[in-house]
Amino acid sequence: MYDPKITAAATEDFVREVVLPLDDRHDGDIEAAGGDRLRIELQAAARQRGIFAPHAPVEFGGGGLSMVDRAAVFEEAGYSLFGPLALNIAAPDEGNMHLLDHVGTSAQREEFLAPLVRGEVRSGFAMTEPSPGAGSDPSALTTVASRVADGWLINGRKRFITGADGASFFIVMARTSGTPGEHGHGATMFLVPATTEGLDVGRHMHTQDKSMVGGHCEMTFTNVLVPDSAILGERDLGFRYAQVRLGPARMTHVMRWLGAARRAHETAVVVASERRAFGDRLVDLGMVQQMIADNEIDLAATRALLLKACVVLDDGGRGSEETSVAKIFAAEALCRIADRAQQMCGGLGVSAELPVSRIARELRPFRIYDGPSEVHRYSIANRAVRRITEAK
Amino acid sequence: MYDPKITAAATEDFVREVVLPLDDRHDGDIEAAGGDRLRIELQAAARQRGIFAPHAPVEFGGGGLSMVDRAAVFEEAGYSLFGPLALNIAAPDEGNMHLLDHVGTSAQREEFLAPLVRGEVRSGFAMTEPSPGAGSDPSALTTVASRVADGWLINGRKRFITGADGASFFIVMARTSGTPGEHGHGATMFLVPATTEGLDVGRHMHTQDKSMVGGHCEMTFTNVLVPDSAILGERDLGFRYAQVRLGPARMTHVMRWLGAARRAHETAVVVASERRAFGDRLVDLGMVQQMIADNEIDLAATRALLLKACVVLDDGGRGSEETSVAKIFAAEALCRIADRAQQMCGGLGVSAELPVSRIARELRPFRIYDGPSEVHRYSIANRAVRRITEAK
Amino acid sequence: MYDPKITAAATEDFVREVVLPLDDRHDGDIEAAGGDRLRIELQAAARQRGIFAPHAPVEFGGGGLSMVDRAAVFEEAGYSLFGPLALNIAAPDEGNMHLLDHVGTSAQREEFLAPLVRGEVRSGFAMTEPSPGAGSDPSALTTVASRVADGWLINGRKRFITGADGASFFIVMARTSGTPGEHGHGATMFLVPATTEGLDVGRHMHTQDKSMVGGHCEMTFTNVLVPDSAILGERDLGFRYAQVRLGPARMTHVMRWLGAARRAHETAVVVASERRAFGDRLVDLGMVQQMIADNEIDLAATRALLLKACVVLDDGGRGSEETSVAKIFAAEALCRIADRAQQMCGGLGVSAELPVSRIARELRPFRIYDGPSEVHRYSIANRAVRRITEAK
Amino acid sequence: MYDPKITAAATEDFVREVVLPLDDRHDGDIEAAGGDRLRIELQAAARQRGIFAPHAPVEFGGGGLSMVDRAAVFEEAGYSLFGPLALNIAAPDEGNMHLLDHVGTSAQREEFLAPLVRGEVRSGFAMTEPSPGAGSDPSALTTVASRVADGWLINGRKRFITGADGASFFIVMARTSGTPGEHGHGATMFLVPATTEGLDVGRHMHTQDKSMVGGHCEMTFTNVLVPDSAILGERDLGFRYAQVRLGPARMTHVMRWLGAARRAHETAVVVASERRAFGDRLVDLGMVQQMIADNEIDLAATRALLLKACVVLDDGGRGSEETSVAKIFAAEALCRIADRAQQMCGGLGVSAELPVSRIARELRPFRIYDGPSEVHRYSIANRAVRRITEAK
Repeated sequence: MYDPKITAAATEDFVREVVLPLDDRHDGDIEAAGGDRLRIELQAAARQRGIFAPHAPVEFGGGGLSMVDRAAVFEEAGYSLFGPLALNIAAPDEGNMHLLDHVGTSAQREEFLAPLVRGEVRSGFAMTEPSPGAGSDPSALTTVASRVADGWLINGRKRFITGADGASFFIVMARTSGTPGEHGHGATMFLVPATTEGLDVGRHMHTQDKSMVGGHCEMTFTNVLVPDSAILGERDLGFRYAQVRLGPARMTHVMRWLGAARRAHETAVVVASERRAFGDRLVDLGMVQQMIADNEIDLAATRALLLKACVVLDDGGRGSEETSVAKIFAAEALCRIADRAQQMCGGLGVSAELPVSRIARELRPFRIYDGPSEVHRYSIANRAVRRITEAK
Repeated sequence: MYDPKITAAATEDFVREVVLPLDDRHDGDIEAAGGDRLRIELQAAARQRGIFAPHAPVEFGGGGLSMVDRAAVFEEAGYSLFGPLALNIAAPDEGNMHLLDHVGTSAQREEFLAPLVRGEVRSGFAMTEPSPGAGSDPSALTTVASRVADGWLINGRKRFITGADGASFFIVMARTSGTPGEHGHGATMFLVPATTEGLDVGRHMHTQDKSMVGGHCEMTFTNVLVPDSAILGERDLGFRYAQVRLGPARMTHVMRWLGAARRAHETAVVVASERRAFGDRLVDLGMVQQMIADNEIDLAATRALLLKACVVLDDGGRGSEETSVAKIFAAEALCRIADRAQQMCGGLGVSAELPVSRIARELRPFRIYDGPSEVHRYSIANRAVRRITEAK
Repeated sequence: MYDPKITAAATEDFVREVVLPLDDRHDGDIEAAGGDRLRIELQAAARQRGIFAPHAPVEFGGGGLSMVDRAAVFEEAGYSLFGPLALNIAAPDEGNMHLLDHVGTSAQREEFLAPLVRGEVRSGFAMTEPSPGAGSDPSALTTVASRVADGWLINGRKRFITGADGASFFIVMARTSGTPGEHGHGATMFLVPATTEGLDVGRHMHTQDKSMVGGHCEMTFTNVLVPDSAILGERDLGFRYAQVRLGPARMTHVMRWLGAARRAHETAVVVASERRAFGDRLVDLGMVQQMIADNEIDLAATRALLLKACVVLDDGGRGSEETSVAKIFAAEALCRIADRAQQMCGGLGVSAELPVSRIARELRPFRIYDGPSEVHRYSIANRAVRRITEAK
Repeated sequence: MYDPKITAAATEDFVREVVLPLDDRHDGDIEAAGGDRLRIELQAAARQRGIFAPHAPVEFGGGGLSMVDRAAVFEEAGYSLFGPLALNIAAPDEGNMHLLDHVGTSAQREEFLAPLVRGEVRSGFAMTEPSPGAGSDPSALTTVASRVADGWLINGRKRFITGADGASFFIVMARTSGTPGEHGHGATMFLVPATTEGLDVGRHMHTQDKSMVGGHCEMTFTNVLVPDSAILGERDLGFRYAQVRLGPARMTHVMRWLGAARRAHETAVVVASERRAFGDRLVDLGMVQQMIADNEIDLAATRALLLKACVVLDDGGRGSEETSVAKIFAAEALCRIADRAQQMCGGLGVSAELPVSRIARELRPFRIYDGPSEVHRYSIANRAVRRITEAK
């Protein structure tokens, strides 16, 4: 097991020395910077530094860090948009590792988890569908897995599947019972190799973020036949496992994006300390100080909520409430931070001369991915109403 | 030493059974409800329940709770505007106890702290002055203590001195060296009995909050003679002690106001769950759900930042940064919560029919008292600029 | 017809010389200042200055100003919380005059409008009911007017009826057909003298605003018998007339509150220009400048939206959209202005030493009265969806 | 002179039929779409429709529309990111035309303005410099024009010069007296053909907006010799002329961006009306309705402030205050609109599948270009303080 402090410090050094220069040279565009080829190089370098896969199970060569302990490491990795990939802690692989570790059989762990932890392959998580399928409301799931003699036949369309282009396998969410709109059951997760007949990775949907290798793709499943052994966990419990995956996955998102937002903030403070207007350094002007202070407050509050949620998760809790709260707050706060950083940097802040514009670009989707803020607010409100009215 | 959990639960019961009805009957106006007479009654009842002075030194009969442990207790007390007074944890006495405990000599602790903990007397903290004296910027302190043969002669004017009317003694901040505007030194704290000749408590300044016994008063010091033994701590170190007092005092403010804001929120949720518009319960309307969720998020973030600051303080840190961040965030977040609660309650939310209007009224000054948000932001920004530019 | 510019200037002088001192002396509490007795004195003074009832029909002795022209006059009147009452342009009388002028028969205008314009009597508008009756959703109206041989028998309960205590007559909204929840029809307006048997003005509901003479009261109607001639306008068209009343009434609210918010802002700027912190005048500190600028922007945007809506109303339009937009924006912007003004004034800003705390107190309900912001947003969104989707 | 209503309607048709498809195909990237070649084609098409250069002087073939009249036309043009270019009303040419028309001599108007109006050439406005030169604070101007026998020798560096690549001439701001930091005088504007020796257009600074032909470039001036006749207006009055240019230029920016923001909003409403979650259309969910309503309010307030400023400008006023207020409000409101539109569209809202992500990307710099919001707030606050304190 890695030492958390040493790993965080080593990650900080590694990212600044090795990763940031590449990130800056290519304005955070991972494909322009080399895509999977670069990934392999960076991961080799991270392995050498002893900081590779710090979160993954020790038995597969990972660092075994708890949620609380990985927070600082992931934040340092996230300081560069390419850092998470370099440490093999990027989405969706990182969340898939977590899920496989918790739900997979020994055979599944050996076949899928082991090479994933080692960075030999990448994976996808195929849940989101075109309207009117699974989106903000996962229960609308329309992809179907039908029982056949020798297993299951999957048919359906997916989209926004992160990392799909180049992934070796997918965790595919498909309906095995019930009907679209029914909440909480009827979905099953399947482990499907990318080479399975009928599985097709289609065009990239060009989103404004550019740092995720393999893009966000459309997929179609046409009579994709998988055996019973492809089921991850138990049949019909897919929505429950999605929660198992999503709680921690939201928090690791927060950790990584914290690093990126902190970089935007620190960049802006340095720029504003070096520039003058109306006779003062920008950092001595009250309106700039207000932006700096608000960034510090947003960073502190994000960290405090993240820590709280990680403690709950490490204690074995599901943390639905705590991760929802931390996710919403973080997504909105980190976007505010990047936006203020842009404003402090003036024209440079909306250009590729500095990292702040690109960080703002990459952060924005986080208010939508992994559940839009509105959906989380809906859940939080409903829980609050139940809790408060029942207590009265 | 009190058990934190038991104390919190007992405080919750006590407040709801005994204190809230009085608070509601008098719309949170402590003087209308009985003032010091009511205080004495409520404190006797709290003592009987074994929850009195939960924060005070055990040697003087208090509960000895740490900052972390007192958080839940103070929050439960704050659920009623009169609760803190009932437990003898209201400002300014609570902060004065902390200061006396940390800086006072044995004799001072015996003479001033002991009766204060027991609720036999009340006290004041006389720092704020009329413009252009000590206010947002304490270094502007103009009240002077001049060396004379048999001690010190204090002259000056104060205002907004909370609890002054009826206080038995004051901790008085006066300049013993330097000139107004010089930062960080030259002030000394004196312990001055209210009966000292030349000390005059003047008119009440009618502020919008009405829950603090003894009001917010003007004071004048005219040739007030005090002996050397009246100095609290060391000469000229008053500004440093003010920080000793302010860090924890800010956090106990946050704890108490958290309780009040939570009450506003819970009241609004109950009201909105019982009322309908356009065919739905109000709590099933998206805009109301958004307000509920935002309240929950603001409560959670306030608690998380408070906890972080309390851990630092309990560990012996000064916590300037953490308490500033938590104080600003809390003051603004709790005001937002009360405001949303008012909005959810409609016309009732701006009336004395429900507690939410009064809670909004009481909370608003917290964004100004104990350092306006702008002054805290100024400090936070300056620290951030130093930290970030030095690291580069 | 009054000259708009001369009237505005004369109103400014009158308010500052005569009205403000009384407002300040009594912290904006109209009952403490003299209630109806004071109203009569101030109205006599306004009449002498030739600025009385500037909006009312010329035939009844009013100034006959259009919506556009009255904007500046009402704003000047609103500079003091007592100013609107002094000019006889306060709610609810002002809106009732508008409605009577547009819908009343000659006899009704002579009997009810004429003395109201002259300030001889006050009136009420009895629509709002206790839950689950008419509130944010007027269609929930439960007060019933039943047909009887010699007219109508009104039964029901009302609350939050502004100015009820001391009013000579009420415009009462009662259901004459349909059932609660049906939208847009079934309500009828009745003109009911306060002395009618069975009409009872009950207790005051203590709201946080204190500047409206006659308070906000509960009312009960128990077999209140009124003749057919008491119907204002046509039977069953009450909801439509409520809109006739509400569009302009919302805008005159905005005008008056603009004056109050401007006073808070100007007070704060003057205070902040006279005080110093950290070596600078407060108005030279960036965070204060930001508050000042934001206030100026909010004032300008409120005025611009108000003007737009007034032009539509003067052109004979219903202005549902424009008045909704202007009302929401104004209510929220003016509250922000008062809040920033409080913050700029520090401790004084939450005390009765300055008018800003009381202006914040009075303004807050405007985000709820005359349709909470949420209900207006709901209407605006629905209209927008229809307009935009139909155009595609 | 063009008829304003007909021109607006024809512009709407033209943009939707001809321009939008190209904009959408290339995700608003003008260079990818064809750059200057496309510009020439689109301008020919606009000329044929009789909507070309609607704002330019009639004597040069323009439409002669006033500020008020051009608002609707520019907004319709701005509905596509390429629309303003098509009508020859894009920055910086549009502002340069205004300036040349108001300050240029007959010869200058003939030589520079005439071909610019006809779309035969493009132009640049060379004011902004690398730090510590002219930026948010134009008085920091460091580019110098030195008196020599046969005219002026210009030396200095510029950056963020919009449209520089391919421009035929530049209006160059250079210091002819005084020193950097002196306010309000000492700058002179020169008309400099792009082919002048020593004038060098350097690299593009890659900003996040991609719709402006000719990019945002660095420039260097090395002993650029220009005759006296190159002076635009009078010597040393450059800062004053910059204001002449900036007031209206800010407003035309607002007009164009209003169109873009409106498109984002309308797109989102249509998408949200076609998608469902939790059993409802998205547009029937309260949190979405709130976003729709807030967009409508922001659009209405922006238009109202714009109109106010245009009336002042058309009346011959400088409109410093009104254009500053409208610019800040618009820049911030329109960014909010685009952001909410993204949120309403979910994953599609951060992709190139819909125009909303690109509109957000293009809009963001407007809070910085033409004076960051902070600088405008500083000016507004200073004016307010002077106005209010002098009135007291």
